[in-house]
Amino acid sequence: MKPIEYADAGAEVRAVFDDIKRTRNVPDVNNFWKYLAHDPVGLKRTWESLKQVMAPGALDPVTKEMIYLAISVSNGCGYCVASHTAAARKAGMTDAMFGELMAVVGMANETNRLATGYRVPVDKGFE
Amino acid sequence: MKPIEYADAGAEVRAVFDDIKRTRNVPDVNNFWKYLAHDPVGLKRTWESLKQVMAPGALDPVTKEMIYLAISVSNGCGYCVASHTAAARKAGMTDAMFGELMAVVGMANETNRLATGYRVPVDKGFE
Amino acid sequence: MKPIEYADAGAEVRAVFDDIKRTRNVPDVNNFWKYLAHDPVGLKRTWESLKQVMAPGALDPVTKEMIYLAISVSNGCGYCVASHTAAARKAGMTDAMFGELMAVVGMANETNRLATGYRVPVDKGFE
Amino acid sequence: MKPIEYADAGAEVRAVFDDIKRTRNVPDVNNFWKYLAHDPVGLKRTWESLKQVMAPGALDPVTKEMIYLAISVSNGCGYCVASHTAAARKAGMTDAMFGELMAVVGMANETNRLATGYRVPVDKGFE
Amino acid sequence: MKPIEYADAGAEVRAVFDDIKRTRNVPDVNNFWKYLAHDPVGLKRTWESLKQVMAPGALDPVTKEMIYLAISVSNGCGYCVASHTAAARKAGMTDAMFGELMAVVGMANETNRLATGYRVPVDKGFE
Amino acid sequence: MKPIEYADAGAEVRAVFDDIKRTRNVPDVNNFWKYLAHDPVGLKRTWESLKQVMAPGALDPVTKEMIYLAISVSNGCGYCVASHTAAARKAGMTDAMFGELMAVVGMANETNRLATGYRVPVDKGFE
Repeated sequence: MKPIEYADAGAEVRAVFDDIKRTRNVPDVNNFWKYLAHDPVGLKRTWESLKQVMAPGALDPVTKEMIYLAISVSNGCGYCVASHTAAARKAGMTDAMFGELMAVVGMANETNRLATGYRVPVDKGFE
Repeated sequence: MKPIEYADAGAEVRAVFDDIKRTRNVPDVNNFWKYLAHDPVGLKRTWESLKQVMAPGALDPVTKEMIYLAISVSNGCGYCVASHTAAARKAGMTDAMFGELMAVVGMANETNRLATGYRVPVDKGFE
Repeated sequence: MKPIEYADAGAEVRAVFDDIKRTRNVPDVNNFWKYLAHDPVGLKRTWESLKQVMAPGALDPVTKEMIYLAISVSNGCGYCVASHTAAARKAGMTDAMFGELMAVVGMANETNRLATGYRVPVDKGFE
Repeated sequence: MKPIEYADAGAEVRAVFDDIKRTRNVPDVNNFWKYLAHDPVGLKRTWESLKQVMAPGALDPVTKEMIYLAISVSNGCGYCVASHTAAARKAGMTDAMFGELMAVVGMANETNRLATGYRVPVDKGFE
Repeated sequence: MKPIEYADAGAEVRAVFDDIKRTRNVPDVNNFWKYLAHDPVGLKRTWESLKQVMAPGALDPVTKEMIYLAISVSNGCGYCVASHTAAARKAGMTDAMFGELMAVVGMANETNRLATGYRVPVDKGFE
Repeated sequence: MKPIEYADAGAEVRAVFDDIKRTRNVPDVNNFWKYLAHDPVGLKRTWESLKQVMAPGALDPVTKEMIYLAISVSNGCGYCVASHTAAARKAGMTDAMFGELMAVVGMANETNRLATGYRVPVDKGFE
């Protein structure tokens, strides 16, 4: 499977690529979109969902990107870690913020297992 | 295995329980700590690590709690979802923030798999 | 650790390699089996289990291969995604089927987290 | 957090609930949707994505539901296992199909780890 | 789906139940086997694989049971944590061993994410 | 992000590197520590926790290293599998022990999903 470049893409794919470039103000789309372009309907759905989810709202863009990165790290997705580290940096994540983010991700993964292994029942106040 | 209550705890465990109550300004510790108390050395290490990691720094407390919750949800840890939802709410997470947090967690889990399934190579600019 | 080639394998391993080649009608076995050959008993058990599980039954071979691929993608196993994409293609998975498979895998991973994060109780009718 | 029933829902949520009931020909929506209704925009986006992804296409509905169930089992999402077992049964999954599905899910989870643990390099032919 | 009790089981299932009871010297089999009995072929395959894998060898039974428990905790499988905690205790796991086991499981889950998040390349000496 | 070598490290990082080298009796630290050095506080906390957790106790070092490796394999962390395979070998893991370890990890991952998929309720005796 190969990436689909803009020059080789159909109208449906080009429309999505154009919207990504315009929304993010970038000259080209990432490999992720060029591969997903093999499924034009899925490409459009995924992009429109992502655009809606990542738009500023009750959470600001850098917070959203850091959460995205946290999940990608926790899941062990190499591509996603690389691309969302870049995206979070671009949105304003500093070295110090990255260090604290990783510390929280590591700690949560540790205590999640301790809670499961000790079979801790949910506290009355949390039900 | 049963929770270890303050009244039945040894000096080492009591010292940790006291510090948790003082730091969080709460009258009692959560079940998590009462179970972990079966391993007093582990209890102390885990609490001291957590206290350091969750202290305000480059990231504010509500952001840290939301990242903790995001990982707990992604890992499917029932106890952790319950306790960290409460902690994040207490730190200032509103309904709207929770809704957006869940949306990002869901989206990241979706696109992580798309990137893996399409075997997307890392973009030159992200290496 | 290096792959064990047929020429260097003992009788027990050769017997398994021969059966894989005969069953799948292929000239050589994949790297997976050549590495697993370091544990001849495990090699034999894994192959015999796999042969039984993947044989046509209530589910046809392409459906089984797509489910295998879905799990491999969801788990983020690079080797497994590569080998089971090839196997599913060989069994009849088209580009369109692959696109829909990935969409379902992505969607399931997304909604699994939403159900966990919103702490949705099981509906009466599903118990 | 409590489920939002139709009677208490706003127009945006009701429109989604109506579409789910019409599409699936059911008298009420599952708890999943009643909880997600706390985020009306997310509810609408998730339902519209799901409706598109699960519609018959290159894969038939029972195959899609079985893949959804496979992922839910692999992720350990209790609610999702319950609801998608019901959905797959309704779409035509028999006892025999369920047994084979579980066998494939189990086997894939096993061999995924063997491939990772033995650090098997991707075969030339799969790259 | 209901458990299949010995009295209601066919000859194939009874033979497996008998072997489990004999091998483990127990009066009845666990729920796990009573549910898996819905797929007699899978029941037999799973039991025979498990019997082979868990037999004393280069690793002793309590070590094998602790590894089994470690994985079950890490995967968040509630049933498996309960049953393999019991099995490991029966094989000789003490409170102190359990505490250290959980500490290692927690630590490994933490540092796995740190290695992934910092995108640490494999050291020359480990390749 | 690049590794931080001893020559370029500050006093806080050097102190940790020195302790790792002394404790493990090695001439240099692994890449993991050189990357984590970007967060000196996290480096120190992680190393001190790891040193405490991995010290001989109720479990011997090779057992602890094998459990660490088991989790790393199950989580699919490439770096961690490479480094902890080396560490476990150094602590005394033989080929036969590795083979059995992988077999248990694979089997646990398989039966974890069977228990979840069949929705097996916890046996009275395990509660």
